[in-house]
Amino acid sequence: MPIASSIREALGSASLIRKMFEEGNQLKKQYGADKVFDFSLGNPDIEPPPAFHRVFTKLAKEDKKGSHGYMPNAGFPEVREALAVKVSREQGLTVTGSHIVMAVGAAGGLNVVFKAILNPGDEVIVSRPYFMEYKAYAANHGGRLVEVDTLPDFNLNIPAIQAALSEKTAAVLINSPHNPTGRIYPAATIADLAEVLRSWGNRSGRLPYLIADEPYREIAYTVEVPPILSAYSESVVVNSYSKSLSLPGERIGYIAVSPGIQDTEAVLNALIYTTRILGFVNAPALMQRIVAELTFARVDVAVYARRRDAFKQVLDAAGITYAEPEGAFYLFCQVPQGDDLAFVEHLKQYRILGVPGSGFGKPGWVRFTYCVDEKLIHASGLAFKQALETW
Amino acid sequence: MPIASSIREALGSASLIRKMFEEGNQLKKQYGADKVFDFSLGNPDIEPPPAFHRVFTKLAKEDKKGSHGYMPNAGFPEVREALAVKVSREQGLTVTGSHIVMAVGAAGGLNVVFKAILNPGDEVIVSRPYFMEYKAYAANHGGRLVEVDTLPDFNLNIPAIQAALSEKTAAVLINSPHNPTGRIYPAATIADLAEVLRSWGNRSGRLPYLIADEPYREIAYTVEVPPILSAYSESVVVNSYSKSLSLPGERIGYIAVSPGIQDTEAVLNALIYTTRILGFVNAPALMQRIVAELTFARVDVAVYARRRDAFKQVLDAAGITYAEPEGAFYLFCQVPQGDDLAFVEHLKQYRILGVPGSGFGKPGWVRFTYCVDEKLIHASGLAFKQALETW
Repeated sequence: MPIASSIREALGSASLIRKMFEEGNQLKKQYGADKVFDFSLGNPDIEPPPAFHRVFTKLAKEDKKGSHGYMPNAGFPEVREALAVKVSREQGLTVTGSHIVMAVGAAGGLNVVFKAILNPGDEVIVSRPYFMEYKAYAANHGGRLVEVDTLPDFNLNIPAIQAALSEKTAAVLINSPHNPTGRIYPAATIADLAEVLRSWGNRSGRLPYLIADEPYREIAYTVEVPPILSAYSESVVVNSYSKSLSLPGERIGYIAVSPGIQDTEAVLNALIYTTRILGFVNAPALMQRIVAELTFARVDVAVYARRRDAFKQVLDAAGITYAEPEGAFYLFCQVPQGDDLAFVEHLKQYRILGVPGSGFGKPGWVRFTYCVDEKLIHASGLAFKQALETW
Repeated sequence: MPIASSIREALGSASLIRKMFEEGNQLKKQYGADKVFDFSLGNPDIEPPPAFHRVFTKLAKEDKKGSHGYMPNAGFPEVREALAVKVSREQGLTVTGSHIVMAVGAAGGLNVVFKAILNPGDEVIVSRPYFMEYKAYAANHGGRLVEVDTLPDFNLNIPAIQAALSEKTAAVLINSPHNPTGRIYPAATIADLAEVLRSWGNRSGRLPYLIADEPYREIAYTVEVPPILSAYSESVVVNSYSKSLSLPGERIGYIAVSPGIQDTEAVLNALIYTTRILGFVNAPALMQRIVAELTFARVDVAVYARRRDAFKQVLDAAGITYAEPEGAFYLFCQVPQGDDLAFVEHLKQYRILGVPGSGFGKPGWVRFTYCVDEKLIHASGLAFKQALETW
């Protein structure tokens, strides 16, 4: 029994997605990468903005003494102060550097938050569809997800969340702009959710946290992403520069805590402590110093917007319906009758790769990513039409 | 109850060390940092070697397309291949890139290993004194440490480890060169340990892993650090560049698995999977590419050797006995009668800061670090003498 039983089980169930991934690679070997319409991976292909390169080379040239050494587990104080300016602007209230804990990406940040707040058996409410890694993140620290459905337009279903609240509810986890639907939850929805949580907290004596996973905050097309920290005192925002600066491999992000959170100091100390003991220790030093100088820089969102429009044309022409994406870089499409796994298999014959909705807890749907060259999107039009005609 | 009970407890018990740390800062404010003999922190003050700066600026200048993007969770394949050369040389057998999983420092690597192998209630045997964070790392993933004592010279006590083996033993964890004693376990000791583990495995049906935490491998003065992977098939080495290249803030390290390990593919897949779900996702991309080009570079160990000699003179003159350090950058000293916590308090009156042995599970001892300028070590001579005269 050389590996943990829970991990052995997880590896077994992960094999479907791995198999798909391997088959995709096989297709690319067979036909050439530019002949395969790979819309499966959420790996930003837009380069970091020029300002990133400027700061990167500047810091490399300086290479200041001690700049690669340890710093407080929460991050460099001056970096936290710089990010507080950004977070204050985005979140509609004034936060200080002390409310920011630098994180090893949003995935690291979510693990740090869960470890800090979850008691064994505690529940975290999520809305389907959702990024399935959340399940593992909560389970890592003794928690479990409680799933509710969204409304048909993929906005949060507040009564459903309300009905799912229990004494074991530690937190409600939301993600906006949303993977895989591209939905941005309106301010009114956030306000309703906050009201439900406050009222539940008053009755039950346990105010649930609202955790907002916001890696796509800066990838928004038509509407602003409303603030979370100013909407509800017991809120925590987790963010990263993976999408906004196209730095997913560098693992740099942060946790921001609402200044009004109960027992503020204990919460911050807990986040700092779990950053340490989970083995993150601190977010990578160099990237901390880079993002501190890039508070308002971001990739050119217009590129994603053009691709989104191109992709919508392709889908419209093929007769595929989808959720209107307001942000992020995904199109979540309804499978025209039948099973999403079978549909994804069918698409493969036309060299189109997507991820079945079942992978997000939402069978009957499929996710396509537009982290690919616009040309590839245009070129996929015929393949989509043919695939739909034979489905 | 806003934070997890286990974290609240841990924060309570951590307050002693935090208090010490804050008092140290207070002393520095009061007297000036150069007037305080701060030997408490293991934060390498030697700058990364010139080769690091060369590769760093080269990569910044190139800033290749896609170089900050996602890569496989195990790391860039070419980086893993490059490190396999280094590991093969150090570990006395041929490993390939597939046996290497890049990690967010050694602390990240140990969490990844524990998550991959520990079932609830599993035990990990450690030898006192030891780096106390290990306890949290194991507990994070449902495991618990079983402590045994070393021999009086701080070499491993093999019969004691043998006696501690149980059906719940998942692993024996060792650290060489050793924090806090500076001990390097001889090849004969490793061979004896391997024999005991093999024999226990044959009888019990469960071969324990041998996990070697080796961040100080390259900080060795008089003897070579013997290989682990060639000594025992079920072994895993965790290493980082925090000390060898003075990059602790950059969180870059790796896990190397013995090619002979049972169920190799499952073990590697488990490590890759836990890297993902614990939220590390991958080791920072840029630092991966930098260390791949610095396979044989390291900081100038002679600097540490000179400091060690200077510090030994100071301690000898003050009449303090210590374990002879063969590697790392610590002097582990016997408190001349009495309590280590009281002794550390007493030293503070002479502006000397150290860490009590109780913080490593070894009361009656104190740890001093020589990650400080040699001048400060020489300058501390009088303070040590006075402190000892009044103890």
